[in-house]
Amino acid sequence: MRVGIGILGGGTVGGSLANQLLREAGAISAKSGIDVELVAVGVRDLAKKRDFPAGYATDDLEGVVDDDRVDLVVELMGGIDPARSLLKRALEAGKPVVTANKELMANHGEELIELAAGRGVSLLFEAAVGGAIPIIRPLSESLAGERIDRVIGIVNGTTNYILTAMEDEGRAYADVLAEAQALGFAEADPTADVAGHDSAAKAAILAGLAFGVWVSVADVHTEGIHGIDEVAIEMANSLGYSVKLLAIADGGERGHVARVHPCLIPMGHQLSSVRGSSNAVFLEGPNLGQLLFSGPGAGGQPTATAVLGDVITASRELLAGSQVTPRIRYSAASPRSFDDVENQWYLRLIVADFPGVLAQVAGAFGAADVSIKSVWQEGRGGTVTLVIITHPAQEKAQRSALEKLSALDAVDQVAAIIRVLDEE
Amino acid sequence: MRVGIGILGGGTVGGSLANQLLREAGAISAKSGIDVELVAVGVRDLAKKRDFPAGYATDDLEGVVDDDRVDLVVELMGGIDPARSLLKRALEAGKPVVTANKELMANHGEELIELAAGRGVSLLFEAAVGGAIPIIRPLSESLAGERIDRVIGIVNGTTNYILTAMEDEGRAYADVLAEAQALGFAEADPTADVAGHDSAAKAAILAGLAFGVWVSVADVHTEGIHGIDEVAIEMANSLGYSVKLLAIADGGERGHVARVHPCLIPMGHQLSSVRGSSNAVFLEGPNLGQLLFSGPGAGGQPTATAVLGDVITASRELLAGSQVTPRIRYSAASPRSFDDVENQWYLRLIVADFPGVLAQVAGAFGAADVSIKSVWQEGRGGTVTLVIITHPAQEKAQRSALEKLSALDAVDQVAAIIRVLDEE
Repeated sequence: MRVGIGILGGGTVGGSLANQLLREAGAISAKSGIDVELVAVGVRDLAKKRDFPAGYATDDLEGVVDDDRVDLVVELMGGIDPARSLLKRALEAGKPVVTANKELMANHGEELIELAAGRGVSLLFEAAVGGAIPIIRPLSESLAGERIDRVIGIVNGTTNYILTAMEDEGRAYADVLAEAQALGFAEADPTADVAGHDSAAKAAILAGLAFGVWVSVADVHTEGIHGIDEVAIEMANSLGYSVKLLAIADGGERGHVARVHPCLIPMGHQLSSVRGSSNAVFLEGPNLGQLLFSGPGAGGQPTATAVLGDVITASRELLAGSQVTPRIRYSAASPRSFDDVENQWYLRLIVADFPGVLAQVAGAFGAADVSIKSVWQEGRGGTVTLVIITHPAQEKAQRSALEKLSALDAVDQVAAIIRVLDEE
Repeated sequence: MRVGIGILGGGTVGGSLANQLLREAGAISAKSGIDVELVAVGVRDLAKKRDFPAGYATDDLEGVVDDDRVDLVVELMGGIDPARSLLKRALEAGKPVVTANKELMANHGEELIELAAGRGVSLLFEAAVGGAIPIIRPLSESLAGERIDRVIGIVNGTTNYILTAMEDEGRAYADVLAEAQALGFAEADPTADVAGHDSAAKAAILAGLAFGVWVSVADVHTEGIHGIDEVAIEMANSLGYSVKLLAIADGGERGHVARVHPCLIPMGHQLSSVRGSSNAVFLEGPNLGQLLFSGPGAGGQPTATAVLGDVITASRELLAGSQVTPRIRYSAASPRSFDDVENQWYLRLIVADFPGVLAQVAGAFGAADVSIKSVWQEGRGGTVTLVIITHPAQEKAQRSALEKLSALDAVDQVAAIIRVLDEE
């Protein structure tokens, strides 16, 4: 049976999807029984050269949504507006929606999901997290009956590419970032990636699905990778750790909490072998144990693959007259404060080398009730480097120790602070 | 809305599921909106002690299927009969079925799927492959529109446990097997696992879903791990390889082909880090790149987790009046012959040490059109060990070379043959 597809957005992913629909329609029909038919691709700038047949392009975005031949709307424009109003328009018209827009789903998911549920229209967003990796669907269907304690993800390909290159080649952050921009792996304005905002949106989506609660991006504590220098990475490596930008969501009885920050992870951990622009998501639960999903986290074709799976599912639901949104029920719940989260900290301090300085430093931690797990000292005479890894302590205690440390005359500089993934 | 669940089979997985349904019903309802209610657990031996409340147990298996309070039947007995007739009875009565039975699905999947499709009844089998790892659903939904070139799986926990212990501890096969049996990781009769039959059933299921064709277990070339000795593993390790029992399914224009045999895989490959009883499935396709799914491949609770996801999906479809089976359309297609599959072979030969013996050995390969990639010789004088890795060649050519080799007077023994995963 025929389902007409209207795509909003003709960039890398939109173009890949358009071509895949045109090229693979026969194979898709043979394998799924659904005849997907590309109707139109809405773009903002008709003058821009596209890598799909020009006849499908139109700059009348609302016209794509309203077109009677369009049964299903795929949104691949990104950003909040006009994506948000166009998708509301589609849902209100009873047209199922597939989107890869993590920013929109993280910030306005509640509104869109409730609108879709109220109208009985499918709204699917597999490609919003993890590119080609099926993670939204396993969380919302395969594991719908499951208690999930923790989600840990490497969900931003740009930052993982940068950190991997820094680690493998011993290069400086700014140098690798410039190369990534030249190669098209990083945007001209890389802030959304390197400051962790992209990961935070994905963390909010994953936490919401894993724990069945509405999670606001504003509640996701977010730190980026711009503070990570090559010295930190080299020292981490020598201690047996890799540095990764992680999105971590914890559930449990004390409330959920989601956060994004760089983390040291032991080199034996499965996530440490996720290299380059790959993504991975790690799930833990009392019954399921540990599951790992990994694959290409970005790129036009892999992302279009995830979108296409949703298009087929939404088409099947449309044709069967049984559209389903949401798969899981969300409830309202207050998040736990990041202040209360227990973490191990790795600190690199530049201190004056005189007798008793280590006692002063240790005293600052002790006064804040943070205990030290291990200390390494490098250099001798003048100023030396102290590398400290603490035992787990609440963030507020760690910050209090940091204040006390910074106030010490002996401490010239706190050169790096990176959290350490707790080895459970 | 209420859905009454009848479980067939009260063993490890059945017991875990029964307890999970009883313990987590409130949480499941909150998260999915579905009120699952355990009605009965059918067992073959009422006298046996169970780890779920005894009041649910009955030995009237048909009675469980027929019970008016049972809306959905979960089959966790294993084996072909009576599982097959009970599931047909359920489907004919319009009751959706969830099963973890790989043997049944691999051997009678076509019959059951067509019966379910004809009656419009859901039939889900996520737990038949990969325990808690969601792999059936990603293949049949997320990737339903996708061309998949290759599936590689470590899908049997027992053999992976044995091979990992042999590798980590340098122990002999028989020794580790005996330990695994004592610990309950291997059956008293371990044939189904160690001879590769369990993996072959899973390979047939995965290949069918990946390529949209009916795959018969009889067409899966199957070799087990009993021929792998500690010397082979030690030598493989020293050359930078791990030994794993792999299920490999290749698609493509020349036809699909599925097979199970031990394989050397480079230590850097993601599958080489799948240790102990863990499972993993690796997918490759032109658009999606490479995806890896890994997690616990066996055990009552992880498997029950996968079953529960299916129970919720099937319940939702039942309540929505839109049951869907199959997710993908299967077609009939002849498999490619295993004879034509190209593999690299690793061989360990015990040969007499005299001038010209290597030329004779090399000549045997050359006469069969197999070229040698590398040779190592160990020992000197009397008999020596030759370790040979060939370039890729068709299985029939490799076998022809083997015959010629075996006929040489200089060759005392072909001590090991293991295929090598091609590094694409």
